[in-house]
Amino acid sequence: MEQRLSLITLGVRDLARAKRFYEALGWTSGAAPADDVVFFQAGGMIIALWGRDQLAEDSGVEDSGGWGGITLAYNVRSPAEVDAVIAEAEAAGATIPRHGAETLWGGYSGVFVDPDGHPWEVAHNPHWTVADDGSVTLAK
Amino acid sequence: MEQRLSLITLGVRDLARAKRFYEALGWTSGAAPADDVVFFQAGGMIIALWGRDQLAEDSGVEDSGGWGGITLAYNVRSPAEVDAVIAEAEAAGATIPRHGAETLWGGYSGVFVDPDGHPWEVAHNPHWTVADDGSVTLAK
Repeated sequence: MEQRLSLITLGVRDLARAKRFYEALGWTSGAAPADDVVFFQAGGMIIALWGRDQLAEDSGVEDSGGWGGITLAYNVRSPAEVDAVIAEAEAAGATIPRHGAETLWGGYSGVFVDPDGHPWEVAHNPHWTVADDGSVTLAK
Repeated sequence: MEQRLSLITLGVRDLARAKRFYEALGWTSGAAPADDVVFFQAGGMIIALWGRDQLAEDSGVEDSGGWGGITLAYNVRSPAEVDAVIAEAEAAGATIPRHGAETLWGGYSGVFVDPDGHPWEVAHNPHWTVADDGSVTLAK
């Protein structure tokens, strides 16, 4: 198995609401209104929105109903950009359990939670590089 | 917010066990044995393993204890490669809720669940392109 991830699917309760939320952050998809899945091209991978019940069945797992041990992160190029993204997410309807602040690991981050309970850390990590194309590379 | 994902963190109960599992799939990290987080460079993003309790606290969410509505996917270049990856994951200790089979959407896929309950669909989607560098692009 190569060391990579092709797609991440976020299970949602209301697909139209979830699509509107990510579109309000500036994202675009080619999805038609009647589509039952929404795909966003995200760099060299894809982020999908799909009904949570269908996703649980398709994945062969029991749904515990809440958060299940996975957090997403979006790395940015400055602390000010962390605050801007958190504010943008809040305006789009996210809840904000943690506003931007300095972290123990020497960076600056906050967290927003999307309308379906999926958390995104928004982080400035001065040790990692965010390239012009948005790709992120670990410090060597 | 740009349309991209920088990092995904998988909460784990036993970091050494989780690291061994992904290493058994052929992945490598620069983590030292004493590190409390393991980072895998995965194309233009990063996949991290971290203690689930710490991740829940850091993310400002309540942990429901099971699956929480997110499934990962790894796209490959042929149906035979789906079967090979599922077999490799099973040998490494994954559970297999669904072996490789044809899908309703015209592809071929199976699912493995890692030792911490995180499901990965392994899929061949003839409508999407997997590039030499592993990046995946939606059909236009």
